[in-house]
Amino acid sequence: MSKATFYHAGCSVCVSAESDVINLIGEENLNIVDIAQDRSRIPEAETAGVQSVPALVTSNGNVLHINFGASMADVIG
Amino acid sequence: MSKATFYHAGCSVCVSAESDVINLIGEENLNIVDIAQDRSRIPEAETAGVQSVPALVTSNGNVLHINFGASMADVIG
Repeated sequence: MSKATFYHAGCSVCVSAESDVINLIGEENLNIVDIAQDRSRIPEAETAGVQSVPALVTSNGNVLHINFGASMADVIG
Repeated sequence: MSKATFYHAGCSVCVSAESDVINLIGEENLNIVDIAQDRSRIPEAETAGVQSVPALVTSNGNVLHINFGASMADVIG
């Protein structure tokens, strides 16, 4: 099974959610992308359907938006 | 480890998220509660901090609100 990808932006909600997702799914099953640190990954996240972070994109391409930390517009702007 | 609890209300977003969460975490690690079918569980969900469904309450009590399906007010009202 390919990994799920957790997109975040270093916000406090993101860090808390990241910890929870790692506990639930296991770090070995996750790609973790900080789009605030690595802005070149933002188009990839948007293409995947990420509308806000933190978000988890499953291996089959579904996007689970978790909580509401920062809108993509906040991260990009 | 105690199980995480997935609260939902039978909405289409909920059903999709339920499928994703089961795939990610495994059904054996989840309690699944449909608060639309079992309204007596609504106070429990609210006490746990669930503000909208679908939501996943981790075994350590953190609430991950997933997407935005229906507000608790919509389900209760």
